[in-house]
Amino acid sequence: MIRTVGILGGGQLARMLAQAGQPMGLNFIFLDPAKDACAAELGEHIHADWNDENALTELGQAADVVTFDFENVPEQAASLIESLCPVYPPPRALYASQDRLREKTLMQELGIPVAPFHPVASRPDLLAAVGQIGLPCVLKTRRLGYDGKGQMVLRLQEDMERAWQILGGHELICEGFVPFDAECSIIAARSNERQTVYWPLTRNLHREGILAISTAPAFTPQLQDRAQTLIHRLMEHLAYTGVMALELFIQDGRLLANEFAPRVHNSGHWTIDAAATSQFENHLRAICSLPLGDAACTSQALMFNLLGQMPAVDDEQSLAGVRWHDYHKTSRTGRKIGHVTVTANSGAGLKAKSAQLAKQLGVSAEVNLAAVLG
Amino acid sequence: MIRTVGILGGGQLARMLAQAGQPMGLNFIFLDPAKDACAAELGEHIHADWNDENALTELGQAADVVTFDFENVPEQAASLIESLCPVYPPPRALYASQDRLREKTLMQELGIPVAPFHPVASRPDLLAAVGQIGLPCVLKTRRLGYDGKGQMVLRLQEDMERAWQILGGHELICEGFVPFDAECSIIAARSNERQTVYWPLTRNLHREGILAISTAPAFTPQLQDRAQTLIHRLMEHLAYTGVMALELFIQDGRLLANEFAPRVHNSGHWTIDAAATSQFENHLRAICSLPLGDAACTSQALMFNLLGQMPAVDDEQSLAGVRWHDYHKTSRTGRKIGHVTVTANSGAGLKAKSAQLAKQLGVSAEVNLAAVLG
Repeated sequence: MIRTVGILGGGQLARMLAQAGQPMGLNFIFLDPAKDACAAELGEHIHADWNDENALTELGQAADVVTFDFENVPEQAASLIESLCPVYPPPRALYASQDRLREKTLMQELGIPVAPFHPVASRPDLLAAVGQIGLPCVLKTRRLGYDGKGQMVLRLQEDMERAWQILGGHELICEGFVPFDAECSIIAARSNERQTVYWPLTRNLHREGILAISTAPAFTPQLQDRAQTLIHRLMEHLAYTGVMALELFIQDGRLLANEFAPRVHNSGHWTIDAAATSQFENHLRAICSLPLGDAACTSQALMFNLLGQMPAVDDEQSLAGVRWHDYHKTSRTGRKIGHVTVTANSGAGLKAKSAQLAKQLGVSAEVNLAAVLG
Repeated sequence: MIRTVGILGGGQLARMLAQAGQPMGLNFIFLDPAKDACAAELGEHIHADWNDENALTELGQAADVVTFDFENVPEQAASLIESLCPVYPPPRALYASQDRLREKTLMQELGIPVAPFHPVASRPDLLAAVGQIGLPCVLKTRRLGYDGKGQMVLRLQEDMERAWQILGGHELICEGFVPFDAECSIIAARSNERQTVYWPLTRNLHREGILAISTAPAFTPQLQDRAQTLIHRLMEHLAYTGVMALELFIQDGRLLANEFAPRVHNSGHWTIDAAATSQFENHLRAICSLPLGDAACTSQALMFNLLGQMPAVDDEQSLAGVRWHDYHKTSRTGRKIGHVTVTANSGAGLKAKSAQLAKQLGVSAEVNLAAVLG
């Protein structure tokens, strides 16, 4: 029986996992190099680097199972812990997602549609890639990119040299630019016993590479089925345990996979407030060998990410049907420090309340609410 | 803007309040004389007696608002804190509920039907009371009774002397014995702005004076309306802020009030898993001047209290649609150490799963599941 869950990483995802797990009687240990890891107030914090073997051993010995709050944990760290206790999701899923080339290649092999891509290790490679893919295209670092960091869109021939000067020091991948109609993500949980549940396909809107808004349910049963089929292939291939998110583009009614995350995902935060079971609870259920809970919506939902600092909304100004989630992080420009979820029983209600809240939050006009809510 | 909530008491109710409040960015301070108060791991614990003025002052100064996890806080303690910061529910609600005679008298004055009652301070009083009310009746201490403690049923004339010998040292009340068809409770939340929400009337089953099972929704809209009207009278009269529970008997289709609790209530624990907003979240919303959330059911639910020790149910034996809540308390005979909630989308599903779970828990045959599920 699992009593103690170890988490590599102690950010807001670890924090929300612990919040879901505490009522279940679970204890948490977080390993995180950041002194002010925001999950720390919910359990024990091993304050150490990812390659600190003593710290990793301490975590692996104290925990009954270990999981991740982010995917860029070094392979050696995951391997060392795997020698001491079960690690879910399986580290092979981390390896596959840590490198965009490996990730895209795997998806292609599994018949999951992706934009054309080409590895780039040199100027001639870049020339060949652009020649094959055409402009516009996107040059990305293969590793450690997140929230839009480490990537540049190439629109003109002369962008190539500029991009090479900035990104050329890294292993790169060049991908076709997708003029998508919408962005979405499918989140699923799979247990050791191969039980799989899927949350409703979520519509997302990014702003400067960072998720700004998610809303669900938002798409037809046909797209839902298709998205489920795609993520199911990935999970089966990886013999996956836990929650996975697959980010997709919708173009002319077709789905094109962008990337997957072997963990709970920002676009699934709305599930805390508007699904029968949240992504956090089901991730814990999966890794603790408990039956997964129902992933159906209990209402319609829209989530705004809160960046930089918590908005100064007085209690008196608070809107009904709105839930504020404060990660207890110190303010810093662009930092994800919380989110807010609007729920409603009708599309019209969701639209009205979201518009009110957007105004209150001072959400920039460029974050087009109408674009996600139709 | 409220950041820090102080709670007088640090038991499981305080623990679940803190679990609901942590995502909202709230901090918690608990004052509790018990060294091992189970809420303590979710905030700061002031380990002191209820009459420790320094400790009460510390709590009142550190908190932006103070509330209770149990109602038997001495009047002086609540008054002292009220001089330092807002206290919700209003202490007058505590005083009214701390004394069964005051409580019953208030309900009678408000036109809330109750069984006949009579104060008892002497043997002649007892004789007069039994003469007036008739047998069977129930002799109870006016104060500090809970979970069936401090009360005896009188069925025969000779029970009187025996009861007097046991209870005669206390201020007492004699009440008519209600041969009820069912027990239920209505839980409501009321905000400073007089917004009031009501959860569905919950059916309860006690065993040896302790709540064993609660299930909801369980009654007709007519009974729901009637129960709402009754609790509304109490809340309005007391200018109440927070969650209140009113326990009622159903006899021949009529409601008869038993007692009210000026706090979140054991019979509302199912709201964590099967209501749009839990009693814990709405209590915090009420005392923090935030708009109350929807109290509608998201599924059908049945809760078993777990007494003494957490059952040894292996992860492998766990049933789907079942949520275990572990209060992290040390085992002790009869102690409430957790609860488990079954949810289902149909009455038949709830019945089947509850029966399976009851078997697994070894729930005694005297706790008649059929009686509450029909």
